[in-house]
Amino acid sequence: MRVTLKDIAKKTGLSTTSVSLILNNRPNKISEKTKELVLKTAKEMGYRPNQLAIGLIKKRTKTIGLIVPDIRNSFFSLLAKGIEDTCQKNGWTMILCNTGDNGVRDAESIRVLSSKGVDGIIYSMSKDATETLPDTIGLFKGYDIPFIMVDRFVPSIPAPVATLNHEMGGFLAGSHLISLGHKKIACIAGPSNLEDSRLRLVGFKRALKEHNISFDESLLMEGNYQMDGGMAAAEKLIGKDFTAIFSFNDMMALGVYKAFSENGIKIPADVSIIGYDDTFFSEFMEVPLTTIHQPIEKTGAAATDALIAAIESGKQIEPFSSFEPKLIIRKSTAPPKSFEG
Amino acid sequence: MRVTLKDIAKKTGLSTTSVSLILNNRPNKISEKTKELVLKTAKEMGYRPNQLAIGLIKKRTKTIGLIVPDIRNSFFSLLAKGIEDTCQKNGWTMILCNTGDNGVRDAESIRVLSSKGVDGIIYSMSKDATETLPDTIGLFKGYDIPFIMVDRFVPSIPAPVATLNHEMGGFLAGSHLISLGHKKIACIAGPSNLEDSRLRLVGFKRALKEHNISFDESLLMEGNYQMDGGMAAAEKLIGKDFTAIFSFNDMMALGVYKAFSENGIKIPADVSIIGYDDTFFSEFMEVPLTTIHQPIEKTGAAATDALIAAIESGKQIEPFSSFEPKLIIRKSTAPPKSFEG
Repeated sequence: MRVTLKDIAKKTGLSTTSVSLILNNRPNKISEKTKELVLKTAKEMGYRPNQLAIGLIKKRTKTIGLIVPDIRNSFFSLLAKGIEDTCQKNGWTMILCNTGDNGVRDAESIRVLSSKGVDGIIYSMSKDATETLPDTIGLFKGYDIPFIMVDRFVPSIPAPVATLNHEMGGFLAGSHLISLGHKKIACIAGPSNLEDSRLRLVGFKRALKEHNISFDESLLMEGNYQMDGGMAAAEKLIGKDFTAIFSFNDMMALGVYKAFSENGIKIPADVSIIGYDDTFFSEFMEVPLTTIHQPIEKTGAAATDALIAAIESGKQIEPFSSFEPKLIIRKSTAPPKSFEG
Repeated sequence: MRVTLKDIAKKTGLSTTSVSLILNNRPNKISEKTKELVLKTAKEMGYRPNQLAIGLIKKRTKTIGLIVPDIRNSFFSLLAKGIEDTCQKNGWTMILCNTGDNGVRDAESIRVLSSKGVDGIIYSMSKDATETLPDTIGLFKGYDIPFIMVDRFVPSIPAPVATLNHEMGGFLAGSHLISLGHKKIACIAGPSNLEDSRLRLVGFKRALKEHNISFDESLLMEGNYQMDGGMAAAEKLIGKDFTAIFSFNDMMALGVYKAFSENGIKIPADVSIIGYDDTFFSEFMEVPLTTIHQPIEKTGAAATDALIAAIESGKQIEPFSSFEPKLIIRKSTAPPKSFEG
């Protein structure tokens, strides 16, 4: 059973009040010798303060909540690892909530985490939660819970954000394909209401513009960041005039591989493809996938550090921090056929 | 700000004590009409009980802890998803702890979760924690925390366990390779102190025995369930006399693919390989991987249901439940060369 203040009082022959004053470091007139005895006894008996009680008194639980769409998605499991590691280093813990990318559960998760007394929340919102984001932020403020958004955000709505530089990632992907000679490049974007997808497209278009290549709207498909969305988009693209695809994440690229394989289209001989995320499987695909690497764990760690610092200092979190992606060239990208010939 | 009992008392003109008696459903002589008024007002004002305070009084926080080696490993992210989903369905939450497969952090995680007042713990132990398992179980008992072990366990040490049927999985893998004509089959096992690895080997040997094939100890390699371990084992195997490999998980099979690719060995033309786990990437590897599928989310959900039921009833958890794997045949397994010729 848990060792209580009463047990320590009994063992030392002191009153529970004295023991409590000493162990909670409250003002008292107890002799140094007695203090030492109590501290030593507490240690020997394996006393650990009850964090629930401390949480109620100090209004601090040293617990943060993490709200993500789906922990099975390797982006979010990497993020969670970076966050939980940083919590551990600081003696904090993390409660995980999956929303299933269902915005209704975003709000519900905040309510649940609030009732558990978390000191702060790291929030990666659901795909369909952009319109209700002002209400969601209102909820954080109503519960007086410090928060930081990770990866997904809406730029017109002020909130602290730690994100990857998606514009740069889109630019790197576009520039790589252009450098190989591609001019007719299809895009399989993420959901159009997500800022990360919008920014990757902005960066991609910047790369086109720098090389005076016009953007063909008919080659832009909207995906859902899942494998089935990549497959559906690839099937719609088949028959159109293009030599390369920029898939806005690796999961959708998996779907493109599957659709192309079923239709006898060879990567990169017929079509080059570049993904995004550098998930660990991208290296081991049928044709190892050229992709954009994002420092996801680092971003999770930085968001956690910022949140804990804000909770402890009571100061605001820096409004925006951004982490740089890099290009990983593998075998799914090559010059277009016409370019070689 | 959070709505308090005081706010509701002010709004209704009642005493805080009366409001508290009503909302906490304590014995009282207050009229039904007044009760209704308080409940309605509480609902309108968005009152939510402070779970920390409730946790202290009821000694129940409706929170469970999940201890896993590494959430980035897709086995554990699937497990976490099954557990967290089940928590949500029951109005519970889950605190996640990663141990990094470091047994010292197993005990530390239990202490931390205990201090957070969790009502129960789902425990998947570190690779190096089998010897200290009796102490660890002592810790659970010392803190009086109900627990259930998932996947990893030690059969000689009694503890409630929800596990996959690893013996059956090993048998299925061995039988499949034998049915293709393989007789010289190498094994890349997991760490030898882990029960899941030991049982897969037992099942594999049973398949050999049923076909009167003797087991060649020199073809048994011990891996670490990581990609690098698979690579190292494959490199040691190159040059030996075998036609197939049973890799005890898909991650190590990835390493075998990498090592074979670097050494010009073709899968399955030169060597067949079967993995274990059916992780989502196994379908999309250079040669889609034949593997053993495990119902991981289902196991996580069942463990959670059992734990919550035990917490709520005060009864013991059923000591052992086992979930059946199945064979998924893809393209990495084929008859051996000698068998075809």
